[in-house]
Amino acid sequence: MAKRTISYRDAGVDIDGNTRWVKRIQSAMGTTHGPRVINRPGAFAGLFQLNGRGRRYRDPVLVGCADGVGSKTLLGVQQNRLYGLGIDLVAMNVNDLITCGAEPLFFLDYLAVHSIRLDRLGVLIEGMADGCRQAGCALLGGETAEMPDLYERDHVDLGGFAVGVVEKGAAIGPDDVRTGDVLVGLPSSGVHANGYSLIRKLLKTRRLRPNARIADTDQTAMETLLEPTRIYVGPVMAALRGSRTAGAIRSMAHITGGGLPENVGRALHRKCDAVIDTGSWSPPAIFSAIESAGVDGNEMFRVFNMGIGFVLIVAPTGVDSVLRSLRRNGQKPVVIGHVQPGRGRVQLR
Amino acid sequence: MAKRTISYRDAGVDIDGNTRWVKRIQSAMGTTHGPRVINRPGAFAGLFQLNGRGRRYRDPVLVGCADGVGSKTLLGVQQNRLYGLGIDLVAMNVNDLITCGAEPLFFLDYLAVHSIRLDRLGVLIEGMADGCRQAGCALLGGETAEMPDLYERDHVDLGGFAVGVVEKGAAIGPDDVRTGDVLVGLPSSGVHANGYSLIRKLLKTRRLRPNARIADTDQTAMETLLEPTRIYVGPVMAALRGSRTAGAIRSMAHITGGGLPENVGRALHRKCDAVIDTGSWSPPAIFSAIESAGVDGNEMFRVFNMGIGFVLIVAPTGVDSVLRSLRRNGQKPVVIGHVQPGRGRVQLR
Repeated sequence: MAKRTISYRDAGVDIDGNTRWVKRIQSAMGTTHGPRVINRPGAFAGLFQLNGRGRRYRDPVLVGCADGVGSKTLLGVQQNRLYGLGIDLVAMNVNDLITCGAEPLFFLDYLAVHSIRLDRLGVLIEGMADGCRQAGCALLGGETAEMPDLYERDHVDLGGFAVGVVEKGAAIGPDDVRTGDVLVGLPSSGVHANGYSLIRKLLKTRRLRPNARIADTDQTAMETLLEPTRIYVGPVMAALRGSRTAGAIRSMAHITGGGLPENVGRALHRKCDAVIDTGSWSPPAIFSAIESAGVDGNEMFRVFNMGIGFVLIVAPTGVDSVLRSLRRNGQKPVVIGHVQPGRGRVQLR
Repeated sequence: MAKRTISYRDAGVDIDGNTRWVKRIQSAMGTTHGPRVINRPGAFAGLFQLNGRGRRYRDPVLVGCADGVGSKTLLGVQQNRLYGLGIDLVAMNVNDLITCGAEPLFFLDYLAVHSIRLDRLGVLIEGMADGCRQAGCALLGGETAEMPDLYERDHVDLGGFAVGVVEKGAAIGPDDVRTGDVLVGLPSSGVHANGYSLIRKLLKTRRLRPNARIADTDQTAMETLLEPTRIYVGPVMAALRGSRTAGAIRSMAHITGGGLPENVGRALHRKCDAVIDTGSWSPPAIFSAIESAGVDGNEMFRVFNMGIGFVLIVAPTGVDSVLRSLRRNGQKPVVIGHVQPGRGRVQLR
């Protein structure tokens, strides 16, 4: 078992392949390191200065989360699309992290593999570094576990872990939601990283054809399915910090397993319901392809994001400013619903 | 794929087994939560207040690391000793974390399984919670990935992540090491969690007998091999903070893969060598059993901890106070060597 240190500089490991592996990781990590990362070759752990770059926290709350890419990994490995899986892994974590208003600081990974194959795993790490740059966080370290007895030759399993920070007074969440608030949805890049057990079943039974052209795109079903998860950190941070938008965002939801009903529910005050108008946006064509393969329409909304990857719950007076801010930052936000008195449920209409 | 939220409260998942699983985790996590954990049912990420409990950081450096349990997992799963694996997972991370002087704050896990089986996985989470209590850190969340297509029925893979904090001025490391410093070793509980690929080979070829009695113990070889990794957080934190010992500890090493030579090397100034007197302690009998099974004596020191799980490099004037402090906190520290001019190498004598 090769021990990869937190700094990915395992100086003592003298096996050639391992040295090249560590060098490749080092260079990928370097592209994500700002001045707050304290460089310590060979260290047992990664160091990150909380204050700096003009930031000085009064009462910082650290935020941590762990997530993987689930069954999408199997599809990505099979199609040799590991760069995208690296982005997915970061995305699944940082999109969770920002829902409470936290800014991502650093990311670490756990890779379980049969053996270290530079060509494949190098690409994976570079995808992670890309995701980290998109999220403005440092790839601070990780662990690669080589377990030839456990895993098949091409296998990769991925666990990710992100840490962020928010001022105590600036942390947002369900308790801040009020009747009359507006639900703003941000389009997903496609299926993101949930529902792949179902998708793999549809592919296996040939009800979903991997080479089918997807309407309004140049892509096949398989290519669309492997599109990396969109990272919402940049536009959401800009809206949280903007002078005209600050304070307008009450709560947020990352739409993962369980779809809009479950995940918007997690962002809701227990005395409010959310009403979502499912006609207010058009789900991308991949979702019709999946539905046509034999999935119930209601089930679709419980398993998939249906084209909305992230939801902001916004005070009515702030909606216009928030929409403008999101558009300036490359998003195409859609008003998808509102909040009314209730008991924590999400109604789809 | 079951999504386990960071708070382990996946309210929307209504499958019975999953609800019971989340309840079991909740109760285990609760035993590790102090007043700095901000409780948010259903949140997308876990929240932890940095200041509090009488602590207020001026210039905090966050420290993060990721590690797994490697091939020991296979042995633990096979012998159904998952509580111990939970402790191992926490230990491998927090012992890395403290080497720079950081205090552990929180821990998260990534579990990959065939399917959630309460009886087995509940025990695993309780082991993790035990490890977290020993390390004084909060089990803040995690992810359980159910992947029946990928893993065999009994399989579990484990990734762990720990976050800690140290004041910038109090962070220690290789640069602080000086000629004349003294190496203080802390006994391991046995093999800890490295070298298990080799051990499994010896077991498979029947050169190491699982039921062989290990000298000076009541245990068989297998029982000894599955002894959980010792957690050094308590005694090391006490020595770092003690009024008589503060400032005396220059650098530290967690002895994992690569043994004393590699890991003490990572804690050493590049212009110093460490000289370790291998006669200054007696390796526990399990190591003779492994060596007798056909491993070269030098190789033993490169693969295993040989009875020393953690090393503190201490200024000569502080050695007596540090030894007393460690003894008061339940350790049996041994002076195992010293530092002399050199070029970053570790000499075993």
